[in-house]
Amino acid sequence: MSHAESPLPESPTAVDEFSLGELILFAESHELKTLDAGRLARTSPHTVARFLERLAVDDRRVVLRLLNIEEVADVLSEMESDDAAEVLGRMRENRAVQVLEALDPDDSADIFGELKKAEQKRLLGGVDPQTADTVRTLISYPKDSAGGVMTTDVATVSRQMTVRQAVDHIQTLNNRFEHIHYVYVVDDEGKLIGTVSMRDLVISKTDDSIGDIMKSELRGVLDVMMDQEDVALEMAKHNFHALPVVDSGNLLLGMVTDDDIIDIINQEATEDFQKALGAGGDEAIHDPILNSVCRRSPWLLVNLLSAFFAGGVISIFEEQISHLTILAVCMPIVASLGGNAGGQTLAIVIRTLALGGLERKDSKSVLIREAFKAGLNGILVGMISAVAVGFLAGRWDVSIVLFVAMILSMTYAGLAGALIPITLRKMNLDPAQSSQMFLTASTDIVGFAIFLGLGSLFLL
Amino acid sequence: MSHAESPLPESPTAVDEFSLGELILFAESHELKTLDAGRLARTSPHTVARFLERLAVDDRRVVLRLLNIEEVADVLSEMESDDAAEVLGRMRENRAVQVLEALDPDDSADIFGELKKAEQKRLLGGVDPQTADTVRTLISYPKDSAGGVMTTDVATVSRQMTVRQAVDHIQTLNNRFEHIHYVYVVDDEGKLIGTVSMRDLVISKTDDSIGDIMKSELRGVLDVMMDQEDVALEMAKHNFHALPVVDSGNLLLGMVTDDDIIDIINQEATEDFQKALGAGGDEAIHDPILNSVCRRSPWLLVNLLSAFFAGGVISIFEEQISHLTILAVCMPIVASLGGNAGGQTLAIVIRTLALGGLERKDSKSVLIREAFKAGLNGILVGMISAVAVGFLAGRWDVSIVLFVAMILSMTYAGLAGALIPITLRKMNLDPAQSSQMFLTASTDIVGFAIFLGLGSLFLL
Repeated sequence: MSHAESPLPESPTAVDEFSLGELILFAESHELKTLDAGRLARTSPHTVARFLERLAVDDRRVVLRLLNIEEVADVLSEMESDDAAEVLGRMRENRAVQVLEALDPDDSADIFGELKKAEQKRLLGGVDPQTADTVRTLISYPKDSAGGVMTTDVATVSRQMTVRQAVDHIQTLNNRFEHIHYVYVVDDEGKLIGTVSMRDLVISKTDDSIGDIMKSELRGVLDVMMDQEDVALEMAKHNFHALPVVDSGNLLLGMVTDDDIIDIINQEATEDFQKALGAGGDEAIHDPILNSVCRRSPWLLVNLLSAFFAGGVISIFEEQISHLTILAVCMPIVASLGGNAGGQTLAIVIRTLALGGLERKDSKSVLIREAFKAGLNGILVGMISAVAVGFLAGRWDVSIVLFVAMILSMTYAGLAGALIPITLRKMNLDPAQSSQMFLTASTDIVGFAIFLGLGSLFLL
Repeated sequence: MSHAESPLPESPTAVDEFSLGELILFAESHELKTLDAGRLARTSPHTVARFLERLAVDDRRVVLRLLNIEEVADVLSEMESDDAAEVLGRMRENRAVQVLEALDPDDSADIFGELKKAEQKRLLGGVDPQTADTVRTLISYPKDSAGGVMTTDVATVSRQMTVRQAVDHIQTLNNRFEHIHYVYVVDDEGKLIGTVSMRDLVISKTDDSIGDIMKSELRGVLDVMMDQEDVALEMAKHNFHALPVVDSGNLLLGMVTDDDIIDIINQEATEDFQKALGAGGDEAIHDPILNSVCRRSPWLLVNLLSAFFAGGVISIFEEQISHLTILAVCMPIVASLGGNAGGQTLAIVIRTLALGGLERKDSKSVLIREAFKAGLNGILVGMISAVAVGFLAGRWDVSIVLFVAMILSMTYAGLAGALIPITLRKMNLDPAQSSQMFLTASTDIVGFAIFLGLGSLFLL
C-alpha cells in the first residue's frame, strides 16, 4: 500500500459495516449462515438489533452465534428487553450467564426482569455473586423509575483524595467505565456530597484535593423512585450528561446518563402518540399480526359502544330525518369538524403535559382559551359551510341552523380536547391513553345532538 | 452554625431557587420588581425561560434586568429562538452585544437568525470579529441541519502531541468548554483523523502520544448538511455524548452534543404529534389565541372540503335514507370505527418512520399487514355491531349489510392509515402532516359509500 510510510491513518477509516437493508437481503434469501462474521461484528449493535427484531427466534440464534460474548451483549442491550430475554432464554446456560455478566448492570436487570421466575433463578445461580447482587437490587426498582434506568457503574472518590489519587483510583476501575464523564464524591457512608467532571480532573493540579475542586451545590440529583418521564424532564432541564441517583437518605445508588434518556424520550413519545390514537403504547410495526389485533381491539370495542350512543342520538331524530334528509347529509360535516378541531387542542395539551409545561393551576384558563380558539374557528368554517349549503341545497334555514350548530359543537370540541387529557392526568391516568377516541366519541354525540336538536326545533 | 468545625459541606446544598409556580405568583400579583435577584440568579435558566415565555415583552425586560450578562445568556439559550430574538431586539445595543458574545455560538446563531436584517447588521458590527465570523458561518447552515445545531466550541489537538501537551493545551482553552468530554484529533489542514475522550486523557500516561491513544475508526461522523432528525437518529444509535461534524472534505467544523439532541427529539416528537392532529408543529399552549386560530384554520378548511365530499356521498342516497332511516343511524358507526381503526395504524406508521424503523422496501408488506390487522378487528366489531343492531332494531338484513360494510371499511382504513404517511414521505413531505385529517376524510367518504351503497343495493 502506498501508505506504508505513514504508520497512522491520514483520515478516519470508514467503518466497514452491514446496512440494515443488506442484512434483510440475507434473511430474505435464507443465507444467514453465509454472513461475514467479521463484518457483522463491526456493524453497529443498533443496526443488528433492528435486524434481529425482524427475524424468527431460530434465525436470531443463527445470527448471534456468529458474534462473541461482548458483541452479543452489545446487541441485546439495544433490543427491547422482552425480545432480548427471549433470545437469552434460548441460549446455552453457560453462554447466557457470560452475556449477563458482560451487559451493563441496568440492561442486565431489564432483560432479567422479563425472564420467567424459574429461568431467573437458574441463571442467577450461575453469574458471579457481585453481578447477581447488583441485578437483584436493580430489579427491585420499578422498571420505569430512576432506579430502573440507572447504571450502578459509577466512579466514586472521597473528598480527602488528591487529584492524582483520584485519577489513580479511576484507572483501577474496569473498562466498563468507558463512558463515564463525571466522578461522584461520597462520604464514608456512601452519601453523595459533590461531583467532579473528568475535565476538572484533567485541568486541575495533581495535588489539589478533590474537596477543593468538587462542585457541592448540586442540581438535578434524582430520587431513585422518580418516574422516568420526570427523569427525562430533569435531564432536559439541566445540560449535564449524567445525573446521580440517590435514595431518601442521600446514599448514592447510581447514575442516569443522557444516552439512556434519549431512548426514554423516544419511547415515551412513541407511547403517547400511539396510545392517543388507540394503538398499543409499545406496539411495533413488525409485531406478529395477532398481537397487534389484540392490543387494538379493546379500544375499538370502547369506540363501538360510544358509536352506538351516537347512533342512539340520531335514532331519536329518525322521524325528522325521514322528512328532511338534508339533516343526514350535514350531520357528518358537524361531527367531522368537531372531531378534528378537538384533535388539534388534544395534541397541544398532551404534548404540553408530557413536557411538563402545564401547571395544575393553569387548567381553568387553558380550558377557556382552547374552547375559545376552537369556537373562533367554528365561526369561520360555520360561515363557509352555511353559505355553501345555502347555495347547494337552497335551504337557508338549514344554513342558519348548521352555522349555529358548528360554532357550538366546535367550542365544545375545544373544551373536550383540553378537558379529557387534563382530567385523565388529575385521575393519575396517562393523559394520552386513547384520548382521541374519547374525544371523537363525545364530539360525535354532542355534535349530532346539537345539530339534530336545533334542526327539529326550528326546521320542522 | 454547628458546622463551623467542618470547612466542607456534609451533604450537597439544596439549591435555593424559585419554582415556576412561585414566579407565576409574582407575575399575577404584578410584583415582578420585588423578585429577589440573587435567588432568581440561582434558579435554573430552564425554569426562568419557561416563566418568561408566559410574560408580555415589557415584563420580560423587567425580569431580565435583574440578571447579569452571563445569566441572561443562559436564560435566552433555553428559550425558543424567536422569543429570545424578540427579547434581544429590545435590549440596549451594548447589552445585547455582550449577551450575544456570552452565548454559545450555536445558540447565538439561532437567535441571530431570527432578527431582522437591519438588526443583524447593527449588532454584528458591535460584537468581536471572531464571534461575528462564527455567527456568520453558522447562520449560513439550514437551522435544522447538523450545521445549524452544532457548536463550534470544539477542543482539537494534533496526533503528534503527548498527553501532557494535549492536557496543557486544553487548560488554555476558555471556560466555555466546560461540557466537553471528547477532544478531536485533526491534521494540519484541520481534517478529522481521530477522537480522544477526556477519560482516555485521564487514564493514559502523560508521555503517550495522542496518535497512540486516539480512536481512528470513527462511527457516527456527521455531515454538516445532515437533517437534525437524522442527527438525532445517529445519536440514539451510537451511545456517545457528542458526535463530530465535518464538511464533505472531512474538515472538522464542530460537534453536536446529546443535550442538544434531547431538545431536538422532544421538539420533533411534539411537531409530529401536533401536525398529525392538524395543529401547528411548533404551536405552544400559551401562544396568543389568534396565532393558534390562524395556524389551525387552514387544516380545518381542508377538513371542511372533505366533509362536504362525505356529505355529497350521503346526498346521493337521500332517497334511500328517507325510506330507511336506520341507515342514517348506523352511518356514523361505520365512519367512527373506520376513522379510529385507521388512526391506530397511522400512529404506529408515523412513529416507526420517525424512528427510522421502516425501509422503503417494507412499504408493500406493511400496507398489506396493516389492512389485514384492521380487517380482522373489523370482523370482531362488525359481528358485535350486527348482533346489536339485529336485536335493537329487529332488522337482520341491515345487520348483514352493516357487518360486511364494517369489515370492508375498516380494512380500507388500515390500508389508508399506512398509505397516507408512507405516500407523504415518498413525496418528500412530512409523513405526520395532518395525516389524521386526510385519513378520517377518506374513511368517512369510503365508509359512507360502502355502507349506503350496499344498503341501497340489498335493502330497498
